[in-house]
Amino acid sequence: MIGFQVTATDGAARRGVLSTPHGTIETPAFMPVATLGAVKGIAPGELEGLGAQILLANLYHLALRPGIETIERLGGLHAFTAWGRPILTDSGGYQVFSLAERRVIDDGGVTFRSHLDGAAVRFTPESVVDMQRRLGVDVAMVLDECPPWPIGEEEASRAAERTLAWARKAREAWAASPGPGGLFGIVQGGAFPTVRERAAAELSALDFDGYAIGGVSVGEPEEIRRRTVEHTAARLPTGKPRYLMGVGRPEDIGHAVAAGIDLFDCVLPARNARHGELFTRSGVVRLKNARYRDDPRPPDPDCSCPTCRRVSRALLAHLVRSGEVTGMVLATVHNLSFYLDFMADIRQATASGELASPGRSQTARPADPAVSPSAGSSRTPTP
Amino acid sequence: MIGFQVTATDGAARRGVLSTPHGTIETPAFMPVATLGAVKGIAPGELEGLGAQILLANLYHLALRPGIETIERLGGLHAFTAWGRPILTDSGGYQVFSLAERRVIDDGGVTFRSHLDGAAVRFTPESVVDMQRRLGVDVAMVLDECPPWPIGEEEASRAAERTLAWARKAREAWAASPGPGGLFGIVQGGAFPTVRERAAAELSALDFDGYAIGGVSVGEPEEIRRRTVEHTAARLPTGKPRYLMGVGRPEDIGHAVAAGIDLFDCVLPARNARHGELFTRSGVVRLKNARYRDDPRPPDPDCSCPTCRRVSRALLAHLVRSGEVTGMVLATVHNLSFYLDFMADIRQATASGELASPGRSQTARPADPAVSPSAGSSRTPTP
Repeated sequence: MIGFQVTATDGAARRGVLSTPHGTIETPAFMPVATLGAVKGIAPGELEGLGAQILLANLYHLALRPGIETIERLGGLHAFTAWGRPILTDSGGYQVFSLAERRVIDDGGVTFRSHLDGAAVRFTPESVVDMQRRLGVDVAMVLDECPPWPIGEEEASRAAERTLAWARKAREAWAASPGPGGLFGIVQGGAFPTVRERAAAELSALDFDGYAIGGVSVGEPEEIRRRTVEHTAARLPTGKPRYLMGVGRPEDIGHAVAAGIDLFDCVLPARNARHGELFTRSGVVRLKNARYRDDPRPPDPDCSCPTCRRVSRALLAHLVRSGEVTGMVLATVHNLSFYLDFMADIRQATASGELASPGRSQTARPADPAVSPSAGSSRTPTP
Repeated sequence: MIGFQVTATDGAARRGVLSTPHGTIETPAFMPVATLGAVKGIAPGELEGLGAQILLANLYHLALRPGIETIERLGGLHAFTAWGRPILTDSGGYQVFSLAERRVIDDGGVTFRSHLDGAAVRFTPESVVDMQRRLGVDVAMVLDECPPWPIGEEEASRAAERTLAWARKAREAWAASPGPGGLFGIVQGGAFPTVRERAAAELSALDFDGYAIGGVSVGEPEEIRRRTVEHTAARLPTGKPRYLMGVGRPEDIGHAVAAGIDLFDCVLPARNARHGELFTRSGVVRLKNARYRDDPRPPDPDCSCPTCRRVSRALLAHLVRSGEVTGMVLATVHNLSFYLDFMADIRQATASGELASPGRSQTARPADPAVSPSAGSSRTPTP
């Protein structure tokens, strides 16, 4: 069982507390992405130290390897990953539609070949919630059909209807045999307000523990994404947590919080770190730029993460340029810390009513917009 | 300036203290390999926590990138690497002979093409010690000619003579313009006792701050390596530290300590971690072996490193099998910790006279001998 309480509002933005079997999460919150059970290059103890409240793992990947039975036998996903705080698992819908081979979809579910070994696998709305129950996750997600961008309204409507039908089955299966945590529904519907509106209304009637907005950050223009987020968020129940899947850059998160979103995940902090790009309070630092070769300053002089307390931009630039994995590790620690600090600032601004004001916290300043927004989805099939 | 004091002996084995500008090192000691200035995947703060007393970096790599001038401008190698404890730099002799292209050697030095960009570079005995002086390292190494295995006696003798001639030039250059730390000579001579003997005698007369045995762990059989180590170590000054370059497996280190060696470096802990092989007190654990998929035990139940305190063999096996970099990071932390603990046990055994006795510390038990000994040289050209 999970609970959610809004403790402050600022326009549509909310500050809240999400209670789960493995602890409470202060929202708005960012969930570092641990697709296979670990954030790339970061030990679980270090993640705790950075202040991560909840991790996102991926059912598709875990079901294929090491397999649900193995994890269950080892005591569940928390014991397996050595992470004692809350975990949300994405249902794998996105991965089935972007990564798996020879996919055949029908009203009862989807059959596909594993991208690892070609083995035939079938996911149904019922099996997906059952697997997440067995993993013992704090937040389970329903199976959804996640169409690519762009699609027409008819196709978007068909996918949203199927996602709704699957959501009903998932909801029933969960009610019959609930897991320890909560179950979230997912709103699909592409860029079409009426489709999204109907999906939001139908899902709301099913009384999920929370609601996600899916099918964004799949390549659509920023303007459309923002309109979709605003329009959909406004039509979700106010008393339940709202999760925007796979978004995004700090400025996207700032916008979405103002639209009433409570939970986020994104691979950008880790992915950009691998490419030598640091999020800082004064914009993006691209370590491959020659100006950082001799720069003795910390990656972000206003940051107190373990990386910024210790190493210089010059060392990071050297390690990244040399392809040395330590550069990626140190940069990931900083970028994740930046995101987690950014969310803490947002929570404070929301509580003090400063979120919408122009003079709000410096950390909320947008990073360099040249970072591609569409590169940010955690629902991208990078294993 | 550096100093060395033997505080206990056990047969030929010694326990000692090496004093350097950046602190003292209890010997026998293992130096984690930080070729480019960082141990692969491990932050400097974490290395400190594991108890690393001294790091080994590589002049060849650092001279090519980011360049000596850059490091000097940033305050020297300690400031650049954010590592405040002692650093030894290998001279790059091995890399020049194994990694560089179009190498031309003459009595004055060696000219080669950078493996990074093909730029022409010349290393001389004088320039190599000068660069290490500018880096501000605690222990500098002379330029040596490191011939491959196998070679005949005449060729080994020629390389040893050239290494000796270079050592004289290096010694003079260092005396004229010394760095803050000490300078070690290197004994070459292949597998030929008389060549090694002459090299050891001539080098000893030059009064270096310490003496290294080079040209081992280059592919020769274990029997020959051990004989060479025993024979050469016995002919080096007793009052100076002795460093066996690029060796090796725990059992090789145990043997070399008994022969009177004080300092070691080896890439095995990190390299084996990348391949999913853990050193443990009960032998090598090969994580890709199916038996570890379901194993909830820590990697080494008798180890108290951050990895063993937290994660299971099953998680590590999953991450390694998935090619997830976190698996390598967690395994490297353990393997380095194992080596550092192993050295601490050896120091204790040496001090209490138990090193040579059959019932000595369990951690000194050989790991699985199937791990290739020749794979252990830190003087291997893996960047």
